[in-house]
Amino acid sequence: VKSPSKPTQHLTINTKRLYADFQALANIGKTLTGGISRLALSNEDLEARAWFANQIEDAGLFVRDDEVGNLSGILFSANRDAKTLLIGSHLDTVPNGGAYDGAIGVLAGLEILRTLKEADVALPFHLEVINFTDEEGWWQSFFGSMGLAGLLDTEQQRNERQDNGAFRAALYRAGIRPAEVDRARRDPETLLGYLELHIEQGESLQQAQCDIGVVTRVVGRSTYTFTFYGEATHAATTIMDKRRDALQGAAVFITQMHGLTQDEFPDAFVNCGNVHVQPGTFNVVPSEVSLRVECRHEDEEALANFESRIVRLAQECAAQYRLSVSSQRIIHRDVALMDDRLTQRFVDMCEQAGYRYQKMVSFAGHDAQILSKITPSAMIFIPSHEGISHNPREFTEWRDIEKGTDLLLKTVLSLAETS
Amino acid sequence: VKSPSKPTQHLTINTKRLYADFQALANIGKTLTGGISRLALSNEDLEARAWFANQIEDAGLFVRDDEVGNLSGILFSANRDAKTLLIGSHLDTVPNGGAYDGAIGVLAGLEILRTLKEADVALPFHLEVINFTDEEGWWQSFFGSMGLAGLLDTEQQRNERQDNGAFRAALYRAGIRPAEVDRARRDPETLLGYLELHIEQGESLQQAQCDIGVVTRVVGRSTYTFTFYGEATHAATTIMDKRRDALQGAAVFITQMHGLTQDEFPDAFVNCGNVHVQPGTFNVVPSEVSLRVECRHEDEEALANFESRIVRLAQECAAQYRLSVSSQRIIHRDVALMDDRLTQRFVDMCEQAGYRYQKMVSFAGHDAQILSKITPSAMIFIPSHEGISHNPREFTEWRDIEKGTDLLLKTVLSLAETS
Repeated sequence: VKSPSKPTQHLTINTKRLYADFQALANIGKTLTGGISRLALSNEDLEARAWFANQIEDAGLFVRDDEVGNLSGILFSANRDAKTLLIGSHLDTVPNGGAYDGAIGVLAGLEILRTLKEADVALPFHLEVINFTDEEGWWQSFFGSMGLAGLLDTEQQRNERQDNGAFRAALYRAGIRPAEVDRARRDPETLLGYLELHIEQGESLQQAQCDIGVVTRVVGRSTYTFTFYGEATHAATTIMDKRRDALQGAAVFITQMHGLTQDEFPDAFVNCGNVHVQPGTFNVVPSEVSLRVECRHEDEEALANFESRIVRLAQECAAQYRLSVSSQRIIHRDVALMDDRLTQRFVDMCEQAGYRYQKMVSFAGHDAQILSKITPSAMIFIPSHEGISHNPREFTEWRDIEKGTDLLLKTVLSLAETS
Repeated sequence: VKSPSKPTQHLTINTKRLYADFQALANIGKTLTGGISRLALSNEDLEARAWFANQIEDAGLFVRDDEVGNLSGILFSANRDAKTLLIGSHLDTVPNGGAYDGAIGVLAGLEILRTLKEADVALPFHLEVINFTDEEGWWQSFFGSMGLAGLLDTEQQRNERQDNGAFRAALYRAGIRPAEVDRARRDPETLLGYLELHIEQGESLQQAQCDIGVVTRVVGRSTYTFTFYGEATHAATTIMDKRRDALQGAAVFITQMHGLTQDEFPDAFVNCGNVHVQPGTFNVVPSEVSLRVECRHEDEEALANFESRIVRLAQECAAQYRLSVSSQRIIHRDVALMDDRLTQRFVDMCEQAGYRYQKMVSFAGHDAQILSKITPSAMIFIPSHEGISHNPREFTEWRDIEKGTDLLLKTVLSLAETS
């Protein structure tokens, strides 16, 4: 038995092993169109977790799972009282999404633990790679990271979006007991911090020809349900002027919402991702149209202004067609600030390694924004080809994955040296 | 046994019995909001048929059902070789529709047969009240009347709308064998004609203070599926200008389609009754949006122009957002002309009875338009309160129902005298 070595800046990851992991994982939940569907708690997600647990065990790491289904591999410090540095992301995907979103962050973390274990590096902290449950929100966005942060309780009650019966059944099937999710909370005193590597899902890194994006903040986000109410009447016999067609109001709202965003809030992002029409029959004038609208902005106050402007616009559009409209904010996430010191460490490591980087804002939500509420958190992005994500065409060059993983390893080593 | 009497103009219907029938039927499929859901081939529809069969039997009429599920009561002529005069409509409804649409026509027919039978009127034709299967198109519009007209075969193959598996199962459950629907065809030589009483479902009779609308034609109708194709990308990270958001194209199309109709085709009716968004998640830019659009016009050529203008508009809207669009005409029904002589008979009877009437076009589709392809057909409307239909608030004054039924009876008697 050789004695643990000092941390070293000369370690490198085993890129072939990481690539093999990526390939194996990308086969779980593969769709006919070449995308990935690993919806949280689905068969495919459970298969990916089982595969991940095997990889952790094969690497001789400690497998841990918690009461919200987060699954970790741990490389323990010799100091049993040490705090834990988390490296994480998620293995779940949106329907027919890409192979990189989330997966790369988890696999990079695993590869770093394996590299450190093989080199028998003595760490002053426990190092834990963690896969968070349902980051993408198939059931409830950030269910896993919220559970770990102890933020799940009120959120779960507020969330009127999901069919709780089906959600509960899915949780039970995955071995998660709804009544026990509180116990997933980790004491912040036991945590040193949280690091996350993720694909950018935008194209600013590619355009700036940067290797790395160092995230300074994650935008705030509010999700609304707007429901326009008109009157269901026979589509052939109700004269056009007399109709109270909920869909006409909703359609104008969608169009004007995008126009307003472009004109008045050019820094905001908005999306209407779903429309539900009642009664939904070709020969009946729509009486009820529900829209799911998501607003994002990097500035908390601007986000609030943007939201109230959009709510007012919905009312204006409804009035125009003699409809009523209800606006319900169903999700809100504050702007999340990344930890300055950890962020600076990423910057220092980029400069040392000669990686081209830029500081940037994350427009997508990430587990890091939840973790930042309880522990110093920081995040890096690697380039996404043409910015395409949540799509089978999502792609990141392998050399960029290598650089990102290497930077993460160097940062862990640097933290180990100075902790 | 008294000998059959001559037809007489002095017969009157039993309005209490008709009202009791109406009340009993309105309890089958009643919804929590006071509407009626008797979707074709549903439990409620089957219950309504069973009730109707009982009423026919209780009246001492002959029960007949055919290979497409049409259910009839027959009062036979003493002349076994006589032709058959049909009086019909439908007992099925749209989801949460009203109690009058279709039902009144069938019940009025039944009441007329009972009245004639009680009075022992000798008829020179067989008189048959018929309930047609799926007039509303829950599975396939006019399934029953098309079957009777022998028009079902090619139509069924063309129809890509329904889930044929579920439809077939529903047919089997109702005792209809898909392979045998051809046998429902009636030889036109055996038919004298077809009469239908229906609520107007518009408000022109009410506004003109008329008792009766004598229908001269039923508008032509085309139903399209438009599918806009964009690209599913992450809603937070794809910059607004780079999006190919299928829903933005679809929303502009809906708005402009209504504007175009108002400006260029004021006599046309158009409705977009359903929208389906893929992938339908709040944080993914919509990649695929399907719309169901229905166009109606009383003039065949104008309808064709209107359709091609709307198809072009869809292409223009798609191009505006860098989308593609497919346009598929899934249903087309020609403008249907009612029989001049039968129509004139209705007019004559209105004048004799002192009923205020107007000639009019039907914008809604009715079984009469299908029957008109194989036998002389005619149709009358009675007023709909405020024109509301396909809605729990659908309402027709009882005195209007009485007048309509009386007119239908008088017309049958008049035809009997002159046949």
